[in-house]
Amino acid sequence: MRNLSLLTDLYELTMIYGYYKCGTHRRTSVFDLFFRGTTELSYAVACGLEQAVDYVRNIHFDEADIAYLRSLNLFDEGFLAELAAFRFSGDIYAVPEGSIVYPYEPILTVKAPIFEAQLMETTLLTIINHQTLIATKASKIVGATDGAVMEFGLRRAQGPDAGIYGARAAMIAGCVGTSNVLAGQMFGVPVSGTHAHSWVMSFDSELEAFRAYARLFPDACLLLVDTYDVLGSGVPHAIEVFKELRAQGHKPLGIRIDSGDIAYLSKEARRMLDEAGFADAKICASGDIDEYILLSLKAQGAKIDSYGIGTKLITSFSMPALGGVYKMAAIQNEQGQLVPKIKISNTMEKITNPGLKKVVRFFDNDTGKAIADLIMLKDEPNPDGAPYVIFDPTETWKQKTVVNYHVKELMVDVFRDGRLVYEMPTLKEITAYHKSCMNSMWEQYKRITKPHIYKVDLSQNLYDLKMALLKKAD
Amino acid sequence: MRNLSLLTDLYELTMIYGYYKCGTHRRTSVFDLFFRGTTELSYAVACGLEQAVDYVRNIHFDEADIAYLRSLNLFDEGFLAELAAFRFSGDIYAVPEGSIVYPYEPILTVKAPIFEAQLMETTLLTIINHQTLIATKASKIVGATDGAVMEFGLRRAQGPDAGIYGARAAMIAGCVGTSNVLAGQMFGVPVSGTHAHSWVMSFDSELEAFRAYARLFPDACLLLVDTYDVLGSGVPHAIEVFKELRAQGHKPLGIRIDSGDIAYLSKEARRMLDEAGFADAKICASGDIDEYILLSLKAQGAKIDSYGIGTKLITSFSMPALGGVYKMAAIQNEQGQLVPKIKISNTMEKITNPGLKKVVRFFDNDTGKAIADLIMLKDEPNPDGAPYVIFDPTETWKQKTVVNYHVKELMVDVFRDGRLVYEMPTLKEITAYHKSCMNSMWEQYKRITKPHIYKVDLSQNLYDLKMALLKKAD
Repeated sequence: MRNLSLLTDLYELTMIYGYYKCGTHRRTSVFDLFFRGTTELSYAVACGLEQAVDYVRNIHFDEADIAYLRSLNLFDEGFLAELAAFRFSGDIYAVPEGSIVYPYEPILTVKAPIFEAQLMETTLLTIINHQTLIATKASKIVGATDGAVMEFGLRRAQGPDAGIYGARAAMIAGCVGTSNVLAGQMFGVPVSGTHAHSWVMSFDSELEAFRAYARLFPDACLLLVDTYDVLGSGVPHAIEVFKELRAQGHKPLGIRIDSGDIAYLSKEARRMLDEAGFADAKICASGDIDEYILLSLKAQGAKIDSYGIGTKLITSFSMPALGGVYKMAAIQNEQGQLVPKIKISNTMEKITNPGLKKVVRFFDNDTGKAIADLIMLKDEPNPDGAPYVIFDPTETWKQKTVVNYHVKELMVDVFRDGRLVYEMPTLKEITAYHKSCMNSMWEQYKRITKPHIYKVDLSQNLYDLKMALLKKAD
Repeated sequence: MRNLSLLTDLYELTMIYGYYKCGTHRRTSVFDLFFRGTTELSYAVACGLEQAVDYVRNIHFDEADIAYLRSLNLFDEGFLAELAAFRFSGDIYAVPEGSIVYPYEPILTVKAPIFEAQLMETTLLTIINHQTLIATKASKIVGATDGAVMEFGLRRAQGPDAGIYGARAAMIAGCVGTSNVLAGQMFGVPVSGTHAHSWVMSFDSELEAFRAYARLFPDACLLLVDTYDVLGSGVPHAIEVFKELRAQGHKPLGIRIDSGDIAYLSKEARRMLDEAGFADAKICASGDIDEYILLSLKAQGAKIDSYGIGTKLITSFSMPALGGVYKMAAIQNEQGQLVPKIKISNTMEKITNPGLKKVVRFFDNDTGKAIADLIMLKDEPNPDGAPYVIFDPTETWKQKTVVNYHVKELMVDVFRDGRLVYEMPTLKEITAYHKSCMNSMWEQYKRITKPHIYKVDLSQNLYDLKMALLKKAD
């Protein structure tokens, strides 16, 4: 496992050095990792917990790391010795991977000595911001089509990790395969891919290239038909080769179109394949496709069975950063009490929610669908089925009484006193869990353009605490 | 060093399996890595060669890799044995890192048996696309301000590698430091950072937090002043602490503003610091800044000495993928001749340039500034100083006779017959080289909005070859 202990902003180290020098570094603190709302984000798919857990368990500053930090001439030897002995001793709560989460809901909460909790800020953000970003994008792409979606973006990923963990996030969100062989090996997910234009170009003719490929993979023959002219040569040549395959007792897989007007081309190609008796042959499309193009292809009746999605998915092209933050929610005072904290701001959206919290989701008893979420203080009792009034935390006159419901807490215990207490689910389990979460959401919240805004309210106690701290800060 | 050998699209493996089964896998091929023009890209800063070289030298399929590939039930044992014995045996030419490159110019060319050249496509693209993307963005950001730029984006990077190699690319393009400690250790570049809002929040008051920080770093005291109210409390508290520092014989560094109207706030803060006798104290700004905001801050006379740039740089937010491609330019035929190839398309911009090529840049003898680039066949003689007619490869009637010039070839030999023949420059050397390249560009090509388009023409021989191949394909 890679040692990511130094993968942090310098200021995390200067700050924990400060706490160490002030003698306050052992004080318990609470930090929440969450994202704020944006116009593009109605919901997000929490992702990256497994790698975050690996990071936390593996934090260690080896001799070379300590020597490097010493060379910065910022820290004293006592502090470096503290770092060399670092071992996480706190609690972590988090929503399971694949969960649907909304703005301001903690995805992960660290309760630990500030020396530890502060040190981990940057790396936890890097890991969870990235995978949650890509899982969210993949969820929207997968939701925009009835076709199967394969992740094809490695070459456009922002570096190796972005390709590897982006593929993982995409699979969690419902992609059926990836082109990335290393991701296939690491995560045990299906890999797919056939040939490129260069394969066709390396032969004297397209037909010859197709025949060679068919000989190679007679039972997995998917031919890229747009090197020269999709309808004029690609599809006719594919059909010719498919007939030869059929004569030999094989069943061809289909064709891939990577350019041009794929709505029109797919319909024409479908017609040609059907007329030649290859109604079973699949049509795969690729080439700069995103969720909006998928919606438009669907609207135009494109005949496409599966998609290879590259750049737009693996970089979350339309919004390439999630903007997740990690904010202090409480800190122990001199007397040993855990004191809730808020970060104030001129905009309500940037004011944080104080204290150690939990999130509960209301589900309708009849439909099983999610109704609203409630952020509460962790020691409050959960709503118990009795009519419950929720209210918008900004426009507080907007109220709603929830009835005929049950609730679920979203977060699980991951670390307790530094010990991992969470049994990491397999990728298959995460994917299935994500699917069940998506099924519990009404369609209007999943809509790609102008989705209905899902209610995320604060409990009365949390709201009162927040207001009291705001008044005090004034 | 990490083994990235499996970090590839599956189709590279199915294709080279195909060449292997056809018995053509030893045929020499030529592939060019380049990017196409986009509205945002006038120029790019080539970056990532060092990691690409590391990858090429380190390709090896270990037992676990071979076992995984065997488990896919796609390949025969002879092929797996070929892979297990893989060692790069070809030539690679590339522009040095830090070079200014334009659309369609090869950044890297591989001339090698197709078995090898095809295998490396995806990984070379992942590495060079990413670093070139970030270096290019950083170049535009650095160019938009007279202030110093620090790279602060790790928490928003698309995974650990994106943070690490993004920081490297940013330094090459002129950033003066990074917050990323691991990047500092790996590349020997300056790391910077002070404290966050949570530091201030962890104390009972802002003043107390500032005093504690000043005690800690009396000679490197840079205070974040926007936790509560920049002008109402942050700057006055900072000045109070700076006076105490001065009384103790220390010189305070300055302040950082991370939110609000930083044009206005910086001017007011500058006035307050000056009036208090701290004309030397620097003002650093951060918080969602990009090149356009920098231009507008400059236009409004903001008083900012340095910037910490995060999300917008590390993700190249406005264009998060470069779209670099790797296209076959030639392949050996049965008779052993290297035959130039093109990929045709309905749009001229997507038709590739055939053959083994080089790029020369014309420089004006008087000013030393770059005039135009010429893509030529590798075996053509370079323009020798005599008047030389260049012409636009699409609008061919646009001609220009270049006089009073000298030329430089952009690409260097990196591998010859599988042997590394290029002495890798240090990061400092790359940064200095990049600076000299930027200095040789006229301002109009560097403009952020609507830059003048730099001429990249084809030699007459290359143009004629391309046209002949186009006609033949028709």
